[in-house]
Parts: sequence; C-alpha cells; structure tokens
Amino acid sequence: MKFKVAVDVMPLDELLDPQGKVVNRSMANLGISGIDQVRIGKHITFSIESNSKAEAEATVDEACKKLLANLIMERYSFVLTEVQ
Amino acid sequence: MKFKVAVDVMPLDELLDPQGKVVNRSMANLGISGIDQVRIGKHITFSIESNSKAEAEATVDEACKKLLANLIMERYSFVLTEVQ
Repeated sequence: MKFKVAVDVMPLDELLDPQGKVVNRSMANLGISGIDQVRIGKHITFSIESNSKAEAEATVDEACKKLLANLIMERYSFVLTEVQ
Repeated sequence: MKFKVAVDVMPLDELLDPQGKVVNRSMANLGISGIDQVRIGKHITFSIESNSKAEAEATVDEACKKLLANLIMERYSFVLTEVQ
C-alpha cells in the first residue's frame, strides 16, 4: 500500500516563536490588520510504501521522533492518505 | 468573527528541494525504509478577526502573496476554521 503523508511540526505553545513574532509585526507594517498569534513551523510531505496503514503510521511516527521533530521544542501531527 | 488559519507554503513541484533530499537520504541511513519524495515547506498558523469569512479569506490571501510565500519558488494553500 502506498500513502501520501503530510506532517506538521510546530514550536510548543509554551515556547516563544521569534520568527512568528516578527511576521506578526510585519503584517501590521504592511497594512494587513486583524492577524495575531502567528506561529511558524514546518510542513513536510512524503510518500511511504507499507504493508498496512498501521505499519505506515508506526514508521511515520518513528521518522518524526528520530528526525523530523525536536520533541524538546516541537510537537508534530500527521495525516496519511492512501494513494491508488 | 474570529478564525484560526493554517497556511502551508511548499516549494513548487518543478523545483529541487535540497533540504527534502537530505532528509530523504537520512531516513534510509536511520533504518527507516519505504519513505520517498520528501519535500519540506512551512506551516504557519495564526488567528484573524474579520467581519465575514470572505473578508478573512481575502486578507489571508493578501498576507500569503505579500509576506508568507515567495510565488516564484513556492505555492501556498490555507484553511480557515471559525472560532466561537
């Protein structure tokens, strides 16, 4: 089975996000109003071949823990979509 | 009305993504198999206050074009969710 995977890696809510803060301020400077609480993380997409959805999920979870996210500072979530 | 917005900014499919390539290779080195076509972009979340959903969408679109995405190299998509 083949799946498309989309992983979101975001800074933990408890931590400051300086990049987000700067973008937040820039919005106002550009005349774009009403926007607040900007936070910036990573969006990672890939494909995975696996025998089952459960196995694919386990592999993606391992990849997030070992490589894609730094769990001290970030949290991750992912969505799998089967490809025909 | 208040909305939560999630924007994904990804490198265009026609362009190389060196960061994705390196992660792709690292997966194999870490013993995580079956993963391919890794591409890495940005995931940006924020809140927006607006009079209507259409107005909020127009503002988010403007923010993406002016600040969040570089349309020469990236494409963007976003989802708005109303907050009660």
